Amino acid sequence: MKNIGFEKVNITDGFWKAQQDIVKNASIYSVYNRFNDTGRFEALKMNWKEGMPNRPHFFWDSDVAKWIESLAYILEKTPCDELEAKADEMIDNIAAHQSENGYINSYMAYFESDKIFTNRDRHELYTIGHLTEAAIAYHKHTGKRKLLDCMEKCLDLVYNVFVKYDAANFVTPGHEEIELALAKMYNYTGDSKYLEMANFFVDNRGLHKKSESANPASPKYSQSHLPVREQTTAEGHAVRAVYLYTAMADLAYINGDKELLKACETIFSNIVNKRMYITGGIGSTARGEAFTKDYDLPNIMAYTESCAAIGLIMFASRLQQISVNSLYGDIIEKVLYNGFLSDKTLDGKAFFYENPIEIPPAASKVDDVRYPITQRLEVFGCSCCPPNITRLLASLGNYLYTTDEDTVYCHQYMSSDAEIEIGGKTVKLVQKTDYPRDGKVSITCTGGDVHLAVRVPAWCDSYKDQTKNGYLYIDLADGETADLDFEMVTRFMSANPHVNEDIGKAALTRGPIVFCLEEVDNGPLLRTLRFNSNTEFELGYDSDLGVITLTGEAQKQIVDSSDDAPLYYRTSDCKYETVKAKFIPYYAFANRGESEMAVFVNII
Amino acid sequence: MKNIGFEKVNITDGFWKAQQDIVKNASIYSVYNRFNDTGRFEALKMNWKEGMPNRPHFFWDSDVAKWIESLAYILEKTPCDELEAKADEMIDNIAAHQSENGYINSYMAYFESDKIFTNRDRHELYTIGHLTEAAIAYHKHTGKRKLLDCMEKCLDLVYNVFVKYDAANFVTPGHEEIELALAKMYNYTGDSKYLEMANFFVDNRGLHKKSESANPASPKYSQSHLPVREQTTAEGHAVRAVYLYTAMADLAYINGDKELLKACETIFSNIVNKRMYITGGIGSTARGEAFTKDYDLPNIMAYTESCAAIGLIMFASRLQQISVNSLYGDIIEKVLYNGFLSDKTLDGKAFFYENPIEIPPAASKVDDVRYPITQRLEVFGCSCCPPNITRLLASLGNYLYTTDEDTVYCHQYMSSDAEIEIGGKTVKLVQKTDYPRDGKVSITCTGGDVHLAVRVPAWCDSYKDQTKNGYLYIDLADGETADLDFEMVTRFMSANPHVNEDIGKAALTRGPIVFCLEEVDNGPLLRTLRFNSNTEFELGYDSDLGVITLTGEAQKQIVDSSDDAPLYYRTSDCKYETVKAKFIPYYAFANRGESEMAVFVNII
Repeated sequence: MKNIGFEKVNITDGFWKAQQDIVKNASIYSVYNRFNDTGRFEALKMNWKEGMPNRPHFFWDSDVAKWIESLAYILEKTPCDELEAKADEMIDNIAAHQSENGYINSYMAYFESDKIFTNRDRHELYTIGHLTEAAIAYHKHTGKRKLLDCMEKCLDLVYNVFVKYDAANFVTPGHEEIELALAKMYNYTGDSKYLEMANFFVDNRGLHKKSESANPASPKYSQSHLPVREQTTAEGHAVRAVYLYTAMADLAYINGDKELLKACETIFSNIVNKRMYITGGIGSTARGEAFTKDYDLPNIMAYTESCAAIGLIMFASRLQQISVNSLYGDIIEKVLYNGFLSDKTLDGKAFFYENPIEIPPAASKVDDVRYPITQRLEVFGCSCCPPNITRLLASLGNYLYTTDEDTVYCHQYMSSDAEIEIGGKTVKLVQKTDYPRDGKVSITCTGGDVHLAVRVPAWCDSYKDQTKNGYLYIDLADGETADLDFEMVTRFMSANPHVNEDIGKAALTRGPIVFCLEEVDNGPLLRTLRFNSNTEFELGYDSDLGVITLTGEAQKQIVDSSDDAPLYYRTSDCKYETVKAKFIPYYAFANRGESEMAVFVNII
Repeated sequence: MKNIGFEKVNITDGFWKAQQDIVKNASIYSVYNRFNDTGRFEALKMNWKEGMPNRPHFFWDSDVAKWIESLAYILEKTPCDELEAKADEMIDNIAAHQSENGYINSYMAYFESDKIFTNRDRHELYTIGHLTEAAIAYHKHTGKRKLLDCMEKCLDLVYNVFVKYDAANFVTPGHEEIELALAKMYNYTGDSKYLEMANFFVDNRGLHKKSESANPASPKYSQSHLPVREQTTAEGHAVRAVYLYTAMADLAYINGDKELLKACETIFSNIVNKRMYITGGIGSTARGEAFTKDYDLPNIMAYTESCAAIGLIMFASRLQQISVNSLYGDIIEKVLYNGFLSDKTLDGKAFFYENPIEIPPAASKVDDVRYPITQRLEVFGCSCCPPNITRLLASLGNYLYTTDEDTVYCHQYMSSDAEIEIGGKTVKLVQKTDYPRDGKVSITCTGGDVHLAVRVPAWCDSYKDQTKNGYLYIDLADGETADLDFEMVTRFMSANPHVNEDIGKAALTRGPIVFCLEEVDNGPLLRTLRFNSNTEFELGYDSDLGVITLTGEAQKQIVDSSDDAPLYYRTSDCKYETVKAKFIPYYAFANRGESEMAVFVNII
């Protein structure tokens, strides 16, 4: 199949248009300002001196790269001379300080020029990968090729050092990224050298031709425990993992490599059937920011890094391009509406690195235990997530359509128009929908007939008996409209009982959205709320937050908070009152200050 | 009040007689054999050489001491020449290797003789304290005073170094114990020097006259954060804490120190109202083996060291000697039947150091996280608990009776006879009971009239309106019998909802006994069981384990264990079956191999 890029897809209205507006009006500036404050752009000039604030870091180039890439996607649709000038200046600085031999890493070249390509954990190929993605995007959407020229020269160096002369201290990078960037570079330029390089880095992983230590010491941390084709479970640092898997899927697609595709499918299945939160978040622990084991999905201690959610979308979208299976679109939808969208404040100015699934009462947190942060920040010491969020949202149109010879596949529902080439003609598809508030979607086709396949979401009972591989097939003549109605059912969802800590609990969902309770709406000690599984919920709207809400009856345990309240008492003395519990979408949590939060609630 | 020592109290039959038989027939040998195997007794000869197995440790003398003390208590009732000869030999070795100046610590004197009394964390005063307790017990119950002579000489050294010349690197010990041993020595010998020393060590704690670092660095770890009279919460290493509090209560009693008593009462209240498991276990975390904060009582990760449970009994018994308040007897009972008795296997040969409150499915345990052990062991590297268990059980009669001028207080119910001096005469009290299987207790008095006060347990609804400070007062004429009936109600008990993880759950209890579910009886995934709070339970008996059981109906979620079972599914698709759930006493868990275990179960 062929993916329809976002440059051909305009999101015109509704839920995601609002998100894209926030990115271009707020987030891109917020990230710029904080990166500027913290010296990330200045560092490109390589003039930091001991005693100055903001000592540069070896992965800062990647932060800059993702900001440039985000801006490039915005510029495709919306000119912004002010920010483009900033990006041009950054690129000038990169070009000016690129080493004679092509090397780029403003930290390593300045601080550790004697250690280039000696330490697998120094993120050198990772930053080069991100700069390569930025270069492609900036060239494609602005027409300016200065950064692309730099990266071509830099990648020539990488080719010589790693592929041709095997001259580095390591064979594959500690943090994957360059692999998918090289696949993208091959797709963009058609130069087979980049494909050779991508294959090289993917195929050599896990072969241990040279020391492949990564910190923490376990080879699983950097997915180096086995050759990639023998890997069957998602292991180690979750972001590294999904970046690798994305590249594996890219190469499976490009090379028609069935063995690699099988590995991708097996790993994807392991993630979504055993190692993924209901929000689409992945990575259960802060220790190594990693996957742990099947069904280990702790709520309070969830790590679920924003970048990992984004990587899972990337991985799913690559598989979606290969096989017709609504699972991929379902997962992309799940992540988009939940574990991805929770990454930022509603105003788009601050971001989560981790995304907890439950925030317990502050009083129950123990000293000297590391809990996930509970409020979003504008910048982090390791601030990989914010520009990752902006670049995904700015290019969101990438995830709506694919085509094969005769069919247009519609994977996501957003008010939009798209120009799609198929069968030698260009058709225009216009989606109108209030999704996800409402499941009605109309899709109008002009410019020719089209054979359309629309994803029927897994949560939806409509059309179930009419689907093939999860898609409903519709023939639309030129000018015709398909009127779809994906019934937005509100229901509790339970976790597999092997998820030990969710037994007896459930998460409230409506369509693709996972909801949560916050203390600010429901008072403290959220766990004292108990719900009947068949509770009827009323759809509402919180105009302060600008989100839909669900309100329903619950039993709330009456808490004696007096200082001499007994520590243990007869269960028959537990008293409950009937209250109205108000749920908000999970993605909207932590927008009103510190508050308890719970996704999984007690079911009686 | 005056405490009636166990030498005047014979436990003659029933539940606790069986436990005492196990100690004298099995545990005392098991501990001896493992201590012997691991070189603990040999180390007293101070002849270990590099390359030999079993390098001695600086607190091993305390293990030996508690074994000797345990044996002394057994010898009071039951001659055992074989073990007494072993003890005599140990004592000979201690005496032979005691330093000229009186110092005793077979490790320090041999390995680090240049570092004596320089390191607060070397447990030197702790081991001297335990040897002192052993010396008193051995003299009292065998008439042999060799060890007592050694310890008097050793304590003279301690007096000179610490009290008189302030010549050590620290003022108070890192691990408390010597304080309560000195109080005991004062009570035994009447020598006011020992009282002066006890006061010295207690009063100087928290004054920071010299560096009082203890590892981990927090001064709370060793209760050195505040002067003891200003302490209001139980803090730090739980065993150290309760040993200190016990000594504080001893001194409050001996000195009539109301301020110290108030501190003891405040701390005791903090423990039992905010920081104690329903089993009477204390110490919520393995990090520092410590108390954490109010209402932090995690089940799976509970630390609840056996020695801490024992220390809590000691602390409560000291307060019971001061004030008429059934709370103290209630807590002693709770600990005895649950968090203390769980410390050993039913056959008495192996022991827990930690006592988990829940054992999750093995599959849900994450690599590189430290969980409590799930099966008892015969010996540990740090094997403080096993001989602590034997000495408490062998002297269990200590906890039954106290007297004031005109009243005999009966705190615990065990078939027993006791000779009690009161009002110038000696009365004999004979208890007959099948407690805790049955709440009927008859107490017969001979040798004179007696004014008797019997504790009405907190869990019992009988007699509630006739009690004063929790005691029922009965006048018994010579030869009369009081027939009591403490109704053994089976009920679920809930935790205060501030205990976040127990919300919506409850623990099944019958009389003083807390019950638990084990996988071996109820299948895996115990959390999938749900109970109505008013479930009727049938009392049974498990003849293999030799324990009472409670069986009642529960709903058990039907688990799809197939490899492709969904990770999340509609709660309405959860299926339950009605099953009979079998509970056993908590103290009997982990006697049938690895098994999930749960005290707190889901209540619907």
